[in-house]
Amino acid sequence: MVNLYVALVHYPVVNKQGDIIAAAVTNLDLHDIARSACTYGARAFYVVTPLTDQMRMIEKIVSHWTTGGGGRYNPARREALSLIRIESSLSDVLEDIRAKEGINAEIVVTSAKKRAGSLGYQRFKEMIHDGRPYLMVLGTAWGLSETVMETADHVLAPVSGPADYNHLSVRSAAAIILDRLVGC
Amino acid sequence: MVNLYVALVHYPVVNKQGDIIAAAVTNLDLHDIARSACTYGARAFYVVTPLTDQMRMIEKIVSHWTTGGGGRYNPARREALSLIRIESSLSDVLEDIRAKEGINAEIVVTSAKKRAGSLGYQRFKEMIHDGRPYLMVLGTAWGLSETVMETADHVLAPVSGPADYNHLSVRSAAAIILDRLVGC
Repeated sequence: MVNLYVALVHYPVVNKQGDIIAAAVTNLDLHDIARSACTYGARAFYVVTPLTDQMRMIEKIVSHWTTGGGGRYNPARREALSLIRIESSLSDVLEDIRAKEGINAEIVVTSAKKRAGSLGYQRFKEMIHDGRPYLMVLGTAWGLSETVMETADHVLAPVSGPADYNHLSVRSAAAIILDRLVGC
Repeated sequence: MVNLYVALVHYPVVNKQGDIIAAAVTNLDLHDIARSACTYGARAFYVVTPLTDQMRMIEKIVSHWTTGGGGRYNPARREALSLIRIESSLSDVLEDIRAKEGINAEIVVTSAKKRAGSLGYQRFKEMIHDGRPYLMVLGTAWGLSETVMETADHVLAPVSGPADYNHLSVRSAAAIILDRLVGC
């Protein structure tokens, strides 16, 4: 199994105009990315928001599917949503991984835009077998803010097809990236 | 570009108990699969339900994002949702493709379960360049009914990772399959 963690960031991200915002949490982001993370053996799925009402909402959703009625109805969903950890910032995520692993995670951020020197999938696929922990960071809304991009060790190449259309949902992008890295 | 069509079927599918049902339409299925279809150059994305109130709801969503305010706000979403065609049955989908192409589409159904003789991704990837039209059929709820499986020319191998967990969302499965077939 690979030593890979996934984080979905709701702040700081940008809106359509490029302003830094805190995005609202989308229920199906939690379900879909948890299910993909579980399929491909990620160690944990961090959902990052500093907003306390949003943190409470995530806790309510997760507990319904892990310790509540949802989990009894659908044990497969319980297994997936058990991977979710709620954190108020990316630095808290990194602290949590460091506490588990004893070393810092390498931060790999994702973006729909092409950037010079970005990390290719084949190279990242090789790296995640080197024993170090890796944190793959996904942004909501119109993507991660530049401040997050700058803290990264690597920027992953965008997912693209032949059609020159780069507007996948974050749920789809997460699924595709995990499949490219770990899929059979 | 490949000659590939995608269909998302809401009837006949099965529920958790294996009964045949008509599943409710999920808004984000329309958005996510349309965006993936657009990314990978699919010719059309058929949403299949025989329920007239559900058909009207899909029309309302699609028109908001194609001819209404949503499309003006987000032209990329307009481009994706323009791929959506609403049909009441899979035979109507096949009829529509035959009218466009002059020949029948090869039907490739998807399933989360392993089956003997299933079509592998490498083989399907080669096939979609042979000029014939292909229809990839996805099921909602607990998957396509046996009656649909039996009409297929091919059953695609399930998407799986190393973790022996096969409970991806249909949105994630669609994204991964399209990436495996057409992704760079």
